[in-house]
Amino acid sequence: MASHVQPSSTSPTPIVLAVEPFGGSARNHNPNLPLVFWDDAAVTRGDGVFETLLLRDGCACNVQRHIDRFCASARLLDLPQPALEAWEKATELAAEMWFSKTDRDASCVWTYTRGRESTGIPSAWLVVKDVGDKTVEQRESGVKVMTGARGYNISTSAHETDATINTPPWLVVGAKSLNYAANMAALRWAKSQGFDDVIFTDGEQVLEGATSTVVTVRGNKIRTPISGGDILPGTTVAALFAHATDSGWRCKEKNMLVDDLYRADSVWLLSSVRIATRVTQLDGKKLPKPANETEIRELIEAALGVP
Amino acid sequence: MASHVQPSSTSPTPIVLAVEPFGGSARNHNPNLPLVFWDDAAVTRGDGVFETLLLRDGCACNVQRHIDRFCASARLLDLPQPALEAWEKATELAAEMWFSKTDRDASCVWTYTRGRESTGIPSAWLVVKDVGDKTVEQRESGVKVMTGARGYNISTSAHETDATINTPPWLVVGAKSLNYAANMAALRWAKSQGFDDVIFTDGEQVLEGATSTVVTVRGNKIRTPISGGDILPGTTVAALFAHATDSGWRCKEKNMLVDDLYRADSVWLLSSVRIATRVTQLDGKKLPKPANETEIRELIEAALGVP
Repeated sequence: MASHVQPSSTSPTPIVLAVEPFGGSARNHNPNLPLVFWDDAAVTRGDGVFETLLLRDGCACNVQRHIDRFCASARLLDLPQPALEAWEKATELAAEMWFSKTDRDASCVWTYTRGRESTGIPSAWLVVKDVGDKTVEQRESGVKVMTGARGYNISTSAHETDATINTPPWLVVGAKSLNYAANMAALRWAKSQGFDDVIFTDGEQVLEGATSTVVTVRGNKIRTPISGGDILPGTTVAALFAHATDSGWRCKEKNMLVDDLYRADSVWLLSSVRIATRVTQLDGKKLPKPANETEIRELIEAALGVP
Repeated sequence: MASHVQPSSTSPTPIVLAVEPFGGSARNHNPNLPLVFWDDAAVTRGDGVFETLLLRDGCACNVQRHIDRFCASARLLDLPQPALEAWEKATELAAEMWFSKTDRDASCVWTYTRGRESTGIPSAWLVVKDVGDKTVEQRESGVKVMTGARGYNISTSAHETDATINTPPWLVVGAKSLNYAANMAALRWAKSQGFDDVIFTDGEQVLEGATSTVVTVRGNKIRTPISGGDILPGTTVAALFAHATDSGWRCKEKNMLVDDLYRADSVWLLSSVRIATRVTQLDGKKLPKPANETEIRELIEAALGVP
């Protein structure tokens, strides 16, 4: 099946560390043994949050922004405030373990769930694994993307005039929750049609990628759709905007239409692990290769504090 | 925390059976040991489907309707067709194990996921556990319910005029997937406000309960909102409609407004395990106790083939 991980044959086995949800030492868990109980809310309801960080050159990248979003997600789901020190220490430990064996890039996924129904104690663990050859390859070669409706609208934006009624206090949209079945279904569809990825649209409005943020570059302007509602605020684009602004680029969240993608010098999907992948084809139409492709990629890598 | 299971002290420990996804014998799994691997799509993406059946008096109830919906959910998520014989046999075995120890009602949850990323083989298991004293109590005493917006609209109904654009082929709405974080958040909110449950509404339209189907009874008419889109077709209401129609009731899926709830003789939340729980208060307003409460409850139990 196309969804399998295909790490390089030279990449180390994944590292799984159980994290103490209220602080304490991380525990090395054998990745060949089951980890999660049958009554964990992650398994029964997708009731948990996650973050995916890039590990590179011995370190985790862009950590503070991931911490901030992790805490925001936990708040939205009414989970206890994460024990940040425990997460940071576990991440450092995991990076140390990983880079003692290889210098390849890895993803580090933090997962934090409501825990077992029988205990009420949150479950917390992180997983470090190779980013895989395909990701490395796509950073260089780019991706073919289709646009498509997400299939639902968030009431907050759909009914702005009556926000008090239509923004229920329990709305978890904006949390990076484990509820990704719809996004995964869209990705499977895209792949079955010969595409690498999907950009969700609402009519002519550009929203976001299935697991990434959409960014356009035109002249010295860098744009991304306005986050909030059903557009998750991206940690990589936040790092890029901070760094690129300092370097003289004009960065802005702005309403983005599908036409803007065709008018841009270049279109990018940003995410922690893929970093920046250029969109080479959109709905079957080739997008021009910009003269400054390498410059943009280096700008984004520099923004992440990657040496 | 309020979300803990509070089984009776006399109830047996849960039963966990690993089911062979492509057919074969079920394996008894110790519920005190972890079951699910870190890279199972259920845990990483909520990418799986489930069904909850009632076990009563030695048997699983309403099995065929659960099988049908289970298969439909799997199809929507593009999972392999479930090995139905294995699921049925495992369910019979689990029921046998359960009722050898107690005569209490149990829930039997089937879970079927895309499986481990490293193997691509679906994961499949079932869990039998006591329905809990609270559920038993609520069947008798009823529940206090609040209405509230779901927080999102499914494009299929929102943009009927342009269905080709707005009904993406990957839409998994209608599948009983593991993506219940939003529903759980709504339930937590309701409980924090002193309610027992939520009925989702879209403006004045009644949709469904957070984990149940809404049914009204008025005279000899039994009504439920039209399923499809973001209203999951209920297995219990389907059984009720088939049985009650034979008994002379007039049953129909029909557009339902909040006002219809106040005008009904009685309002019910139907689900497999709670069976039928009467709504005694709606948004703080007491709903009248109908003269035929016991009759309705017996009608629904009879519909499930409960002796």
